[in-house]
Amino acid sequence: MQLSAVITAAAPKQRHLLHQTLAKADAQLETVAQFAMNLLMPEGREPLVDRLAIIIPKGDTSLFEHLQNVTLIEQDEPTGYIQALYQARDFVGNSPFLHLVGDHFYMANDGPSWTLVQSLIDTFKRETTTVSAVQPTRESLLPYFGAVGGSPRPSPNSQPLYLVDTVIEKPTPTEAEQRLIVSGLRAGHYLCFFGMHIFTPSLMQLLDESPTALPTLSAALQILAQREPVLATILPGTRFDLGARYGILQAQLALALKGPDREEILALILELMAR
Amino acid sequence: MQLSAVITAAAPKQRHLLHQTLAKADAQLETVAQFAMNLLMPEGREPLVDRLAIIIPKGDTSLFEHLQNVTLIEQDEPTGYIQALYQARDFVGNSPFLHLVGDHFYMANDGPSWTLVQSLIDTFKRETTTVSAVQPTRESLLPYFGAVGGSPRPSPNSQPLYLVDTVIEKPTPTEAEQRLIVSGLRAGHYLCFFGMHIFTPSLMQLLDESPTALPTLSAALQILAQREPVLATILPGTRFDLGARYGILQAQLALALKGPDREEILALILELMAR
Repeated sequence: MQLSAVITAAAPKQRHLLHQTLAKADAQLETVAQFAMNLLMPEGREPLVDRLAIIIPKGDTSLFEHLQNVTLIEQDEPTGYIQALYQARDFVGNSPFLHLVGDHFYMANDGPSWTLVQSLIDTFKRETTTVSAVQPTRESLLPYFGAVGGSPRPSPNSQPLYLVDTVIEKPTPTEAEQRLIVSGLRAGHYLCFFGMHIFTPSLMQLLDESPTALPTLSAALQILAQREPVLATILPGTRFDLGARYGILQAQLALALKGPDREEILALILELMAR
Repeated sequence: MQLSAVITAAAPKQRHLLHQTLAKADAQLETVAQFAMNLLMPEGREPLVDRLAIIIPKGDTSLFEHLQNVTLIEQDEPTGYIQALYQARDFVGNSPFLHLVGDHFYMANDGPSWTLVQSLIDTFKRETTTVSAVQPTRESLLPYFGAVGGSPRPSPNSQPLYLVDTVIEKPTPTEAEQRLIVSGLRAGHYLCFFGMHIFTPSLMQLLDESPTALPTLSAALQILAQREPVLATILPGTRFDLGARYGILQAQLALALKGPDREEILALILELMAR
């Protein structure tokens, strides 16, 4: 099976995010774009996908020159996230494809971040239908995410699996409470998107039917869920929304505190706090 | 007196640094480039300089489109820091000019960061000769900076002033101990560049004489110090070298911990440490 990957990074407010650097374990800097690439094509390993496209703002090609083995697709006008994804129509063709949002940073509970992508691919290969990664997320963060409701489904491993029946983009707490309650989650938590999906060709077909009618990916998934099973799964890791309040700082700290320089970072924090 | 300003940001390894974002006190993101601009043209105040140029890598103009009232000068080839500065030859003409390095972040002990620039300008206007800001810096950091030796000079305020006799780029500890000892500093500390200078027209004249012969700004200042008094002053603040090990993280933390969201940041650190 051929698996393509598409990273969307064309939103004006995201424009700088992909070029933000994060200090890796060896204190070497890596841009968010490189980090996303390494999720899909980890160094010294078989690539997890066959080909990769990044949707970028028109005119920014030179910024991505340092990336290898990537197709850059420029979006002419910033007409929204779902439209950015649709720019990859010809690139993905009739294959399934993995989709990552460009403004998230991922950390696995154990091991390197690409293991999260590997887990999602394993689930897709087993279930052979659209599957979205989700993360139980506090109610206060609902204004930043799309969220799903659905029913638990047997899972062969420790990663909870759900059959999605409802998808709402940035639901209000009332909407969430009425339509997105999922059994087994902590109170006040909802299944919000993790920013990683694997879509069957049905998604692009749906967008082909009415390319501009669907305002959000959530709206598209809601329709898709009526045509084929749409699954959601909780991966063993955390996503950081880099565009959120202190999002970049949080991701950098998480990365630094997880790495071998933890004590150096703690010393640095203490020194700054003491001022 | 007309005062121009030049920010150098053309080094390949600095290329991403100017687009890194730092969260301001209100958690709004500001790029390093915007932050540098605001040092010189603080919002809601008289600009500290009359005009500003940024030396950038060739082809990067579109990245700086969001900046107002700036002359962008593209450096054709990355031939080094002093050559980048020399690209501003025609821009500065026969005026004195303020120079900032593009990969530093500045924080005043009290008040906003632009007060540091204001202090340097005040010293320049009083002394009417080249003046470099310096910061007492631990010996272990000598590999990252140019450093000066010299003798204390009376200062009318609390900012120590020195007449520079020796300038060495990235001195070894032995060189520093033999040639850069300055009375009154803590043991094992040297006066390293802060990344802010105000030059008389003599600097560009010196570069005109042999445009490619001087390898570093330190080498140029060493010669300049034989032609006119070159002063160094310690400003009441701290510079963070964003290109250093965990430099961006350190600057972001310092900024966040200094602002009104200090408690939110501390909570975030504790949450991450607890994982």
